[in-house]
Amino acid sequence: MLPLNLQSDLIQTAEALADAARLAILPHFRSANLQADNKLSQGFDPVTQADRAAEIAMRDVLAERRPMDAIFGEEFGVTSGESGLTWVLDPIDGTRGFLSGTPTWGVLIALSDESGPQMGIIDQPYTGERFIGGFGRADWTGPHGGGTMQVRTTQTIQDAIVFTTFPEVGTPEQAAAFGRVAARAKLARYGMDCYAYALLAAGHIDLVIEAGLQAYDIQAPIAVIEAAGGIVTDWEGNPAHNGGTALAASTPELHAQALALLKKTG
Amino acid sequence: MLPLNLQSDLIQTAEALADAARLAILPHFRSANLQADNKLSQGFDPVTQADRAAEIAMRDVLAERRPMDAIFGEEFGVTSGESGLTWVLDPIDGTRGFLSGTPTWGVLIALSDESGPQMGIIDQPYTGERFIGGFGRADWTGPHGGGTMQVRTTQTIQDAIVFTTFPEVGTPEQAAAFGRVAARAKLARYGMDCYAYALLAAGHIDLVIEAGLQAYDIQAPIAVIEAAGGIVTDWEGNPAHNGGTALAASTPELHAQALALLKKTG
Repeated sequence: MLPLNLQSDLIQTAEALADAARLAILPHFRSANLQADNKLSQGFDPVTQADRAAEIAMRDVLAERRPMDAIFGEEFGVTSGESGLTWVLDPIDGTRGFLSGTPTWGVLIALSDESGPQMGIIDQPYTGERFIGGFGRADWTGPHGGGTMQVRTTQTIQDAIVFTTFPEVGTPEQAAAFGRVAARAKLARYGMDCYAYALLAAGHIDLVIEAGLQAYDIQAPIAVIEAAGGIVTDWEGNPAHNGGTALAASTPELHAQALALLKKTG
Repeated sequence: MLPLNLQSDLIQTAEALADAARLAILPHFRSANLQADNKLSQGFDPVTQADRAAEIAMRDVLAERRPMDAIFGEEFGVTSGESGLTWVLDPIDGTRGFLSGTPTWGVLIALSDESGPQMGIIDQPYTGERFIGGFGRADWTGPHGGGTMQVRTTQTIQDAIVFTTFPEVGTPEQAAAFGRVAARAKLARYGMDCYAYALLAAGHIDLVIEAGLQAYDIQAPIAVIEAAGGIVTDWEGNPAHNGGTALAASTPELHAQALALLKKTG
């Protein structure tokens, strides 16, 4: 376990990263309409510009506060470090949501060691919601207050609310596997991007099932959900922090039932 | 046309209705987890409770400010009036979103005469966003400012962003009809409830296609979208304000292309 004063410094750094990303991204959100002409004629892309501006802002914070740590960012790749700790950054997870004006995208920040993510933040700059988990804490803040996060206690698929970005993502076989879970669930919903992981951690939904993920898409959700008492693996029950498929569940019972349905062939 | 001072009074009344609904609903949002046990054992339903509390709060405002107008509300039905004007109220549109903790549901308020909705509000209490259209104005306000609403100028399906609540709503034939539009669109997204109509009015997306609607689901979106320069009909090109199917589009060109695809058989 990391020393407590180091944990405290790392949490403060993560919050500073999320603050910096918010400032960098918000001027671009919902500006797509105005800039659409530019995009067509000059190759200007407001989503990419916001992505890059946010990752640069976060890298500037790390250069100041944690120069000994490694960085793995979606936009600018890997920067090596000496501390054994890596900041895994996805400045805008949910590009299609961002492009459509829906406040379902997020800034994903994870701190990982060789065993996987230890602490993470899911931040939604437009709504002002932040979900942070790791080092013994699981907290959220938003426009109307905040509190401690704790996953739901749902025991069966029949009582579960399940989310995914399907039908947009995944192979036909993966979509069919998701369909087996959705058909048995109390409620299946779509299109929430990384916001769905935050809703699971905060105790509002029970399952998130996705495929085609990169490491930076899932490391922060893993940290936040595990800190709130939930479980995240891939669709084989193995660690999910290197990307690929993901199955996030509020309880071990629900995780086992969903895993069996996802693995079932035919 | 209604006298200007009456228009002003009606807009102020609509805003007062939205304010009252916010206060009534927000204490219930995301409280479902705590109340789930109650629901199972005592028939307690936090969504229904919030729905009813909001409609009662809005009816109290109308009794005070506009006792001569009729009311058609989702929860408490029709109250007759003498002014020729009817307030059409859906206290929580997007119950499944509300239940899941997603800020995609909304309070829908429309003012209609015999020809259909003349003014409306789509309000999202949690994010603090309000979209109002009618009597020559089309404005939005939110947590980071506000402004005038104007729909996009997209001319072809290939450049369009299309939203729906499908695959959750509609008959297999209706889902197939939507699929014909989605397959040609630049981007198709799901699960935004009435928030999608607000995004269309505010110039972020191009098409919303839905089915199985009640009059109170669509009257406020019609008023808001038409005020911002857009078009709403049913899937036959006829007025949509009595419910059923809805096709909302940013431009006449896009509306015609989507209508042809929705009507196509086989």
